[in-house]
Parts: sequence; C-alpha cells; structure tokens
Amino acid sequence: MALSNEAKKRLSAGLDAGDFALDKDTRLCYAYDATRREAMPDIVVFASSIEQVAFVMKVANETGTPVYPRGGGSGLTGGSIPLKGGIVLTLERMNQILQIDENNFSVTAQAGIKLETLRDEVKKRGLFFPPDPSSGKIAALGGVLAECAGGLNVLKYGPISNYVLRLKAVLPSGEVITVGSHAPKSVTGYDLKHLLIGSEGTLAVIVEATLSLLVYPQYQQSFCAFFSSLQVALEGANRILRAGFRPRSLEFIDSHSFECIRSYKPLSLPEGTEAALLVEEDGHDEEEVSRQVHQIASVVHQESLEIHLARTPEEREQIWSLRKSISPALYSLAKYKINEDICVPRGRIVEAISGAYDIGEEVGLRTVIFGHTGDGNLHVNFMTDVDQDPKAEEAVQKLMKMVVSLGGTLSGEHGIGITKSPYLGYELSPAEIELQKNLKAVFDPNGVLNPGKIFKET
Amino acid sequence: MALSNEAKKRLSAGLDAGDFALDKDTRLCYAYDATRREAMPDIVVFASSIEQVAFVMKVANETGTPVYPRGGGSGLTGGSIPLKGGIVLTLERMNQILQIDENNFSVTAQAGIKLETLRDEVKKRGLFFPPDPSSGKIAALGGVLAECAGGLNVLKYGPISNYVLRLKAVLPSGEVITVGSHAPKSVTGYDLKHLLIGSEGTLAVIVEATLSLLVYPQYQQSFCAFFSSLQVALEGANRILRAGFRPRSLEFIDSHSFECIRSYKPLSLPEGTEAALLVEEDGHDEEEVSRQVHQIASVVHQESLEIHLARTPEEREQIWSLRKSISPALYSLAKYKINEDICVPRGRIVEAISGAYDIGEEVGLRTVIFGHTGDGNLHVNFMTDVDQDPKAEEAVQKLMKMVVSLGGTLSGEHGIGITKSPYLGYELSPAEIELQKNLKAVFDPNGVLNPGKIFKET
Repeated sequence: MALSNEAKKRLSAGLDAGDFALDKDTRLCYAYDATRREAMPDIVVFASSIEQVAFVMKVANETGTPVYPRGGGSGLTGGSIPLKGGIVLTLERMNQILQIDENNFSVTAQAGIKLETLRDEVKKRGLFFPPDPSSGKIAALGGVLAECAGGLNVLKYGPISNYVLRLKAVLPSGEVITVGSHAPKSVTGYDLKHLLIGSEGTLAVIVEATLSLLVYPQYQQSFCAFFSSLQVALEGANRILRAGFRPRSLEFIDSHSFECIRSYKPLSLPEGTEAALLVEEDGHDEEEVSRQVHQIASVVHQESLEIHLARTPEEREQIWSLRKSISPALYSLAKYKINEDICVPRGRIVEAISGAYDIGEEVGLRTVIFGHTGDGNLHVNFMTDVDQDPKAEEAVQKLMKMVVSLGGTLSGEHGIGITKSPYLGYELSPAEIELQKNLKAVFDPNGVLNPGKIFKET
Repeated sequence: MALSNEAKKRLSAGLDAGDFALDKDTRLCYAYDATRREAMPDIVVFASSIEQVAFVMKVANETGTPVYPRGGGSGLTGGSIPLKGGIVLTLERMNQILQIDENNFSVTAQAGIKLETLRDEVKKRGLFFPPDPSSGKIAALGGVLAECAGGLNVLKYGPISNYVLRLKAVLPSGEVITVGSHAPKSVTGYDLKHLLIGSEGTLAVIVEATLSLLVYPQYQQSFCAFFSSLQVALEGANRILRAGFRPRSLEFIDSHSFECIRSYKPLSLPEGTEAALLVEEDGHDEEEVSRQVHQIASVVHQESLEIHLARTPEEREQIWSLRKSISPALYSLAKYKINEDICVPRGRIVEAISGAYDIGEEVGLRTVIFGHTGDGNLHVNFMTDVDQDPKAEEAVQKLMKMVVSLGGTLSGEHGIGITKSPYLGYELSPAEIELQKNLKAVFDPNGVLNPGKIFKET
C-alpha cells in the first residue's frame, strides 16, 4: 500500500470525515478514466478549498505518498489513473464560478467546474468561451487545462491555452503560486502558465483559472459536403484554407466511419460517397455568416458529389449528430477501440491517412479515421475484440513511428499519460526528455505528483 | 575583463578571423540597445551556423564566460545589453528563410532574419505572418521571440507565441534541442516552446523557428474617431469590443500626444478633441471589410466629435502616420522618454490612465499616454531632460505599484530585462521568483546566459 500509516493518520486528522473516503466502493469509482484502465487508490480526498489541496500536497510530499489530481476522469490517455495507489485528489467540489468580469471579458472559476457548466454560465451574459472538447459535459476545467484538450473549434479559435490569463496552482510543497495575470497580455518573467497547461497534473495542481472570453457568436451555419474519394475531400479542405477561410470547424469523415454509422442508424448518402467534410462557421451577423458559409461551400462545390446545407437548427443538429455518432458507432465494429489523436503538418494528411490504413491492414485490424482536418489532427481508431491486443500495440507503435517521420506529433490534444509514454522517445531526443524530467524535479523533487505519467519509468 | 585568456584562446582557435571581433569600434556597436543603456562586451561573435552557436556556448559554459545573444538590438528593456561584458553572440548572419511550406501554412527561418523581411517574403506567396511590432524593420525574429514582443495586431491575431510551431535552440551546454512540432497542434510533453518564448535569452539561444502562417488579408480599412474626452473614447473602445468586434487594431491617443505631434507637424483636429481612437480592420473580401469598418464606426459615431474614414490607401497611411509620429514627436517635449508598456485588465484602463497622469503630476514630469487599448496595454511615457532622472525612477516605481494593484502586469510586450527587474517583486511572490530562478538553473546551471536580466541581482 502506497499510503503509509503516518500519511493516513495525518490526512484523517486534518480533514473532516466527509472530506475523504477509504471504503472500497468509493475508491473503485476513482480508479479508472475513459481509457478503461484501472488502478486502485488507497484514499480519495474530496478537496473543497485551496487550503485543503495545499494540506494534502504537504502531507503527501513529506511522506512520499503519490497524489493523483482528478477532474472529471474523462481523459483518454490515463492522466488521472492512480497508477501507484496513494491519494486520488478530486477537485469535483471546487466547482464554483468566482467572478465574471464583463468589462475585462474574463471569468475566474475553480478547477473542478464542468467545462460545459462554465460555457453555459458565461453564455448567459452573452459571453463565449470557445474551447469545446467533446467531453465537455464530463470534463472539469482543471483536467481540460492539465491535458490542453482540443475539440472542434481549434481551427478558428485556437487551443485552450490561448484563453488562459492566469492560473492558481498548488505545488507539491503546498505552496500556492499564481502564474499569468488578469491583464490581456503579460510578459513578466517566464511563461509558467503554458508550462502548467498540458503538464498533465505532474507539476502542480491547478486549483483556479482566469480565462479570457469573447462575445458569444449568436449565429452558426453548417454544411456537409460528400466526395467520391478521401483525396478529393482533403484537397477540398486545403482549398478552403488557401482561400483564406478559417471556419469554426473543418472536419472530415472517412468511408469506414459511414459504414459504422450505418450499422448504428439509417443513413442516406449520395451514391459513391467515400468521404465527407463537415464545415461550420459562426459570427455575430446572420447574413454575414450565411454569406461566408456559401462562399466556403462554393470552394468545394464542383468537386463534391453533393452539399447538404443546413437551413434550420434541426438540420444543423443532424449534420453534427453524424460526426458525434461515429465514436459510439465504432463499438458496433468491435469491442475495443484504440483511439489515437496524432497530428501532422497539414500538407502530410493524405500520407498519414493512407499510412494508417496500411498499418491497420498489415496487422489485421479494422481502421476508422476521422478528425479535425483543419488542424492536421486525425483520430485513428484501431478496432479489436481482444483486450490489450498485441496487434493493436503493434499498430500503435507503427503509427507513432510513421507520424514522427512525417514531422508530426504523438498527440494533438489528448496528452501522453500512460498510453503514449512508451513512444515519447520517438519524438523527443534523450537530452530533451532529460531536460523535461529535470524541470519536473524543480516542481516536484520527491516525485509525488501523478507519478508514472508522460515519462516511461525505467 | 569577463573574458578569460583561456576563453579567448579557445574562441580564437575555433572560429575564423572574420567570425569575431575584438576591436573597440566593433564592440561599441554591440554595447547598447534601444534603451540607450550601454555596456561593453569583450568580444563579438558573428555566428553563421547552429554549430558555431553551440561551440560558443560550450566554451562560455566551460569557462564561466557571460554570453549575450543578440538579434537586432531594438529591445526596450535592455535584454541584449552585455551587462557583465564577455561575449556578445550576434545572430545577424543567420538570416535565411529555410523553407516556406505552403501546404502546411508555415515558414522555417533562422533567428537572425529581420521580422519585416520574413513578413515580406511570405507575403510574396500570398501568406501572412501577423506579428508586427513597430521595430519590425530592425528587430530580428529571435529577439522578437525571446521578448515575446507585441505590436498593433495582437487584439485580432493574438501574440507571436500563438504562431510558433517549433523552435530550435542551443542550451548553455552546447546541446541543440527542438521544442514543439511542425504539426499545427502538439501536446507531447511539457510546453517548452512557450517557456523559451519571452525568456529574454536567459534559458537558451533560439536559432531557428517554424512559424504558422495565415492567408494574406488583401484588404485593410481604417478610421480615426475623435472624442471630447479620454473617458468617452475609452468607453467607445469598450462598446466596440462588447459588440463582438475584434478589429485588427484598436489604438487610442491622448491629448498630450496630439500636442506633441502638433509641435512636430501641422495637424488639424476637430475643435475640442481630447482623445482619439484609431481602428483598422482587414480581410479577404473588400466589401466585407468595408461593411465591418462602417459597422464598427457606427458603434462610436454618436459619441464622437468626428470620424475620419480612410477612403484611399493614402488616407489610411495618414491615419497611421499620426500614430507612428507620436514616438519621435515625444522628443520635442524633452530629451528623454521613459517608455513603459504596462498592461491592465480592460475594465481598469480608465483608472490606470488617470493614475499615471496623477503620478506624473506628483513627481513633476510631463506624461504622454497612448497604446493598444484593445489589449489593455498602455504606453506611458514620462518625459525628462535629465539622464537617469530620479524623478522618473520615482514615477516608474509608483506606476508599477499602481498597475499591480489594479490586477495588471509590469510588461505587456517589452519584457523585464534590466529596466524593470527592480519591480519584479511587486508582481511575483518570493516563492514564484525562486521557482523561476530554479527553472533557469536547470537550463543554465553556470549562469552564463544573459546574466543580470529579469532577476535583480542581490
């Protein structure tokens, strides 16, 4: 057991009975995340204040107890799994909005708030927080920041890191630090804000964030364009970008995805459809949004089989339900999906996709690909009925090698966590990994914070 | 002398005669930057390859010799001044574009290239690199990245850090590292890219950058709106933002600025003008840009004295020459300007400006304020005829205290360097400064890289 008697005694003494749990049932609820991997913590602490987080960190640091900070547990690479037992520190009770500053276009919130709640609350004031990962209903702000999660809006609005003004975080020592500023720009000292964002809870526990907001774009319009081949679809996506458009979303779907969806619900597609692009634009002026969407559609009109322009909110919903139904529909193909989020330079997308199909064929696994083509960010899904399938492992290994050879990256938006740590050395040199580990040691000299993540243990 | 005989011998032996200079005249050229501060280096090395940079760093690191990396020397906080002598390592010969990848919307260039050259070269391919600090003709890419310099475009396009895909940098050890990826998004490992950006040359020498590009927006349109008071002008700026606009530029000018300009060149302003807003929008569609500009103008029309809409490129030029003539015109007021770049939450701009005027009055210095109001980023200029005026020092100290009390930051876009290091403790806690210094020590354990910057020496 990773929780020593001393640590247990100090935690029990310093916390109210309702602030922690030692029973197996509760612990089991905090043993897993969306990767379906599982590891049992020895204790779950439900922090409700920065002081409590600081207290837990101090005890953990002084007793060498592993601490696993946790948001919504919706991570896709095992970032919150308590690999070595010890403490799961869940921030779900720290879920309040502290201030919406309409004049500064900013919101300050506790890290445990659900992302969707945050977006809904600021929307009520006519404000807009763009980042929108698909897990927004479950994911907590702190986790989304810790993983630097993406979503469908990144092409137009940029990653979540662009919207962080200021973070409050607790170091393993229990010290509370603030990084960034309430001001829209700041270059005072080193940019520790971006160092904490995407650090997967291995450097500090993010407890509070001030985020910059935009005015809510009231109008959205979407279309779906169908193509006779993936190549033609992707060329169309590139032409859209070359014409100067950066729509809110620019997604592609491959023919295998359509097969999945079809097995899940009826689907009528134009004859000969092998791929589709889904495009959405938004803005503050209805006519202008409509004009833009028509202009974008006209860029790909000639090469497409058909374009479905959404004329009502319901039709728009239909288009996006197509995209959203892929993930659940995948399970009609096989019991397990190994879902990767590789990202390549936009000019190498075609190679990356055909390479991924080849790998799937080579190892003998069905491969389904869709994703954020505007960002070069592809969701490659290897489907298998075997848990921990060595074939899948082989496929992922090959995929990662290929991605790096194309100048791409292991992860565009999910993080490294446990599932990708074996491949870190494909992308980073030994000196670069060493440097990163040394930076980790500055924050966490005793290695108590989320141990076993990002870096493969040797 | 900070350059030991051993270091001098090793550098002379390892470099060609044309690659370094020891004579006083040359050294003097590399002793200063735009702050007008001065410190003589012992040697100037003109690096022309990554290998040479690595060689110089290795010698410096092993002999404990200070190294001051230098781009164009246009910094405003003393970032490139060789405070302790030793080596100035200028990257001006590493000024090539290595690749423009039109399919990936990216450019890879050496760090010594002038920012304007880079922007011009990509423009020839119809591509756009938004960051545009006023010093772009002089500033080198590496310096702009090291300082995370801003400019007039940040409101719409974001800071330069949003456009960096990948950096190559040399550590003090001589090791070459790559951070980031050619892919549009990457969350593999810690975000060292943002740690190097804005680190003011104290962590590593940036030698190469891959930057993401947009399609060049062919159409720009501007207007200037005059107001009877600063308050009314700033309220107008806020209304523009609240209406959902994020124009390319949203600048304000105070009445003291107009006085300066008037003493410099004839100027006809509407009767009673006390402030102005300068607004520019750009885009790919001429009609759309025009429509936007008219919509933005209509937001402030009623409260303004007059609006000058630029109808020709010449008229547009006139509007922006107004803004650009402030800085040189300031010298008609006094011999020295102490130019600060404080940044405050947008809702606190009015307080910050009136506070800055009060401080100027209190210490007895003329105060001129203009800046990027959309970003909350104000250029406060205290004017004096006395070199190193203690009054100016007092004013700056008071200004910095006030800014921090408003939730703002010491620097929005110029960096800390030498000039602001005395005030770092106003914004960061002792623990936060300690953490930053410990991170510096990971990169630069012997403290040879740009010593004396950011952190005040104790």
